[in-house]
Amino acid sequence: MQELQPVLNLIDSNFKHSCDTLFELLRFASVGTDPSYNAECAKAASWLVDYLKGFGIQASQHETTGRPVVIGKSQQLAGKPHVLFYGHYDVQPAEPFDLWTSPPFEPEKRKGERGQDAFFARGAADDKGQLLTFLEASKAWIKTHGELPFNLTVLLEGDEEGDTSHLDRFLAKNRELFEADIVFICDTEMWDNKTPAITTALRGCIAEEIEIQGPRIDLHSGYYGGPAVNPIKVLAKLLANLHDKNGRITIPGFYEGVKPVSAARKIQWQKLKFNKNEFLGAVGLKHPSGEKGYTLLEQLWARPTAEVNGIYGGYRGAGAKTVLPSTATAKLTFRLVEGQNPKKIHAAFRKYMKAQLPSNCKIRFVDQGGDSSGISVSENSKWVKAARVALEAEWNKAAALTGSGGSIPVVQSFREHLGLDCLMIGFARQDDAVHSPNEKYDVESYHKGMRSWARLINEIANGDHK
Amino acid sequence: MQELQPVLNLIDSNFKHSCDTLFELLRFASVGTDPSYNAECAKAASWLVDYLKGFGIQASQHETTGRPVVIGKSQQLAGKPHVLFYGHYDVQPAEPFDLWTSPPFEPEKRKGERGQDAFFARGAADDKGQLLTFLEASKAWIKTHGELPFNLTVLLEGDEEGDTSHLDRFLAKNRELFEADIVFICDTEMWDNKTPAITTALRGCIAEEIEIQGPRIDLHSGYYGGPAVNPIKVLAKLLANLHDKNGRITIPGFYEGVKPVSAARKIQWQKLKFNKNEFLGAVGLKHPSGEKGYTLLEQLWARPTAEVNGIYGGYRGAGAKTVLPSTATAKLTFRLVEGQNPKKIHAAFRKYMKAQLPSNCKIRFVDQGGDSSGISVSENSKWVKAARVALEAEWNKAAALTGSGGSIPVVQSFREHLGLDCLMIGFARQDDAVHSPNEKYDVESYHKGMRSWARLINEIANGDHK
Repeated sequence: MQELQPVLNLIDSNFKHSCDTLFELLRFASVGTDPSYNAECAKAASWLVDYLKGFGIQASQHETTGRPVVIGKSQQLAGKPHVLFYGHYDVQPAEPFDLWTSPPFEPEKRKGERGQDAFFARGAADDKGQLLTFLEASKAWIKTHGELPFNLTVLLEGDEEGDTSHLDRFLAKNRELFEADIVFICDTEMWDNKTPAITTALRGCIAEEIEIQGPRIDLHSGYYGGPAVNPIKVLAKLLANLHDKNGRITIPGFYEGVKPVSAARKIQWQKLKFNKNEFLGAVGLKHPSGEKGYTLLEQLWARPTAEVNGIYGGYRGAGAKTVLPSTATAKLTFRLVEGQNPKKIHAAFRKYMKAQLPSNCKIRFVDQGGDSSGISVSENSKWVKAARVALEAEWNKAAALTGSGGSIPVVQSFREHLGLDCLMIGFARQDDAVHSPNEKYDVESYHKGMRSWARLINEIANGDHK
Repeated sequence: MQELQPVLNLIDSNFKHSCDTLFELLRFASVGTDPSYNAECAKAASWLVDYLKGFGIQASQHETTGRPVVIGKSQQLAGKPHVLFYGHYDVQPAEPFDLWTSPPFEPEKRKGERGQDAFFARGAADDKGQLLTFLEASKAWIKTHGELPFNLTVLLEGDEEGDTSHLDRFLAKNRELFEADIVFICDTEMWDNKTPAITTALRGCIAEEIEIQGPRIDLHSGYYGGPAVNPIKVLAKLLANLHDKNGRITIPGFYEGVKPVSAARKIQWQKLKFNKNEFLGAVGLKHPSGEKGYTLLEQLWARPTAEVNGIYGGYRGAGAKTVLPSTATAKLTFRLVEGQNPKKIHAAFRKYMKAQLPSNCKIRFVDQGGDSSGISVSENSKWVKAARVALEAEWNKAAALTGSGGSIPVVQSFREHLGLDCLMIGFARQDDAVHSPNEKYDVESYHKGMRSWARLINEIANGDHK
């Protein structure tokens, strides 16, 4: 039997060395959005190959249409479950440099604002510290027991902060490299500083642009105002009609396939005791403005939306101009939940807009691409069950099963090209300043993160999850 | 008795000289929108002073905050009616020069597109040719009879095409110079090539900008979409609610003071047999989109409107951006008709917007200035009666009593500062290319225009209009 305790002991006794390892990786300025950092990305990828090889993972770099990916494989034994671990070695740009207390690519351990110990560097939380929690735990397990209780494939990419289509294309073309039962991702947050979290719901997204044309040319609002149709007014009407008075979207068929929030999930989310006043107050709002009959978290994690992200038409300079414009344009995104079909939503939206269009107007649609479906992982999957046991044991607090209102493109790619669900566990904090100056990762996140993964590996080895 | 026929005879026999006079005035490049043409404007004003003196009008230049005005006065005799004639010597810029068949400030007489004779030059129709129709008629009358049957004040300005506030200020400060019973203006169009027109209704205008603020900062549409209010959607709803399903404006009190179109006016406008298919077809529209229950001309000339002239908010670049914007802005103008009070409409609009505002939002209003009231001149005024007789006699066709959907600032200034109505008669044609390259004025407009004014002077001298 592969026991947990000696692995935890090794993680603890080796922690200083794990910190050195993190610092080595943080020193690469592997900025993922700017080609002038390509050499640093290549160095980081090369370092990761060596690092994986260091505990028996067969690793190599592979070219993509973007930056190289690092792929590593443990020894593959029949009959074992197969885990694909995903992380990214690229980081956000560090500008403006002068807002950093210590240089972004010279990691430093110091106190954070809550008095806690933390590692400060660009990428400390997103995603270098996080990805190492899993890899260091796996390394400790292998050093202790010789092998993992599952076949492991590691995929570390360099285009997460930039053009995510590179990895999407690579996955679509190299499906055979990634056969697995589940994807583990360590790139999300804890619910709060004491409560670990598993993200089990993500919204998808589709984007449309619509342009209404009325008159062939801009007109004088005096000489034509009244009889001539005004495309801004038509557009306003179409947008206003997208929701009923309860905030429900009126597009026929829009809610087709949307399941009610499960009782289990409702209870989970109620237990989170989410502070909606703090959440909304931080951005100057007083109360939720979404669909009536749903809590704020349900509106955010479990209900689809229709948002107007931009609008323009006619005169936009200083003062007044008595123009009656020829066209008016709006950019929309729809956040989707599990069960909704992006293609059908595009079609239903267009049909609905056309049905309401005055006969004096034309309408033009532009599908903005990047469709993704809403994703929901059952609380009852064996992976989630195992993770809950592991996280509660480490943190002495039940893991929050959270959703996210946003979309994570790679999760969509795994589902679409590989048919795989993702188990999303992360130890980042809300104050980690991800994408901002003075990004940091708490020492506790790093240490207990490793221990959490070790406990999850133990559940796979010795637990009884079905 | 001052007889008409010798005056008409003089106009006819002197027509060649009248043409030379027009050409002299057209040669000044008195562009009213560009300070580099100020010297040409001064020359035109100076020429006009001499021209007026040439037939016994005491004339001089007066400084304004803009270009000089020319003021002329005939001998003023007690007991006579008093007419103020208004015209403008400034013209639109002539660019692009290469689209002109003959240079814009070298007038040329040649055939127009309908085979008719015409004078081609910038300002030929707007307003040099038109203003001379009245002045040449007055000159012929004075040369024949020694004096006019009314006291005449002439006001010729140089800021009509530019900043109209200069003349407005000058009128407000110099009311005593312009005591009169009526203003004659020759700066409008004929109804069609065979039908003279008197403009008896103008719409006024007020302008407002509104900005809706939702969240304090731009938000991510995934992480906040649903619970967070979207100011673009709020703005769209407010704008959509401005009209009911019949196209009637829903602002409480908006129609206060608006009188129904008089039966006489309805009959007048029906008789015009306005070709609405041609009017709308020219700008790519099929049918009137205005207030139900009104003809196109009523919608345009006699009914107020609420138009959105511009709108903007959120992301307006290429592609999609999942932003939930902090603000959204719209620019509106309201065309007003006689009886509506601009100040009250501003207040009613703002009150209505505030009443509908969701509590999570703020609203900011900017009054864009330039308020003007709707104006309507009775068909039964003695001046209109006299003009109808005169025009029908000259053109062998009853004059059309038309409205205009637009606003003419100077008409508003005369009403506001001097309490005067305007009699608007003009002989321009729809194909005169006013403000465009190859502007022209038909020789027939110039000649019969003078004869029309002579006939109107005769009606004042000898008619029995009350």
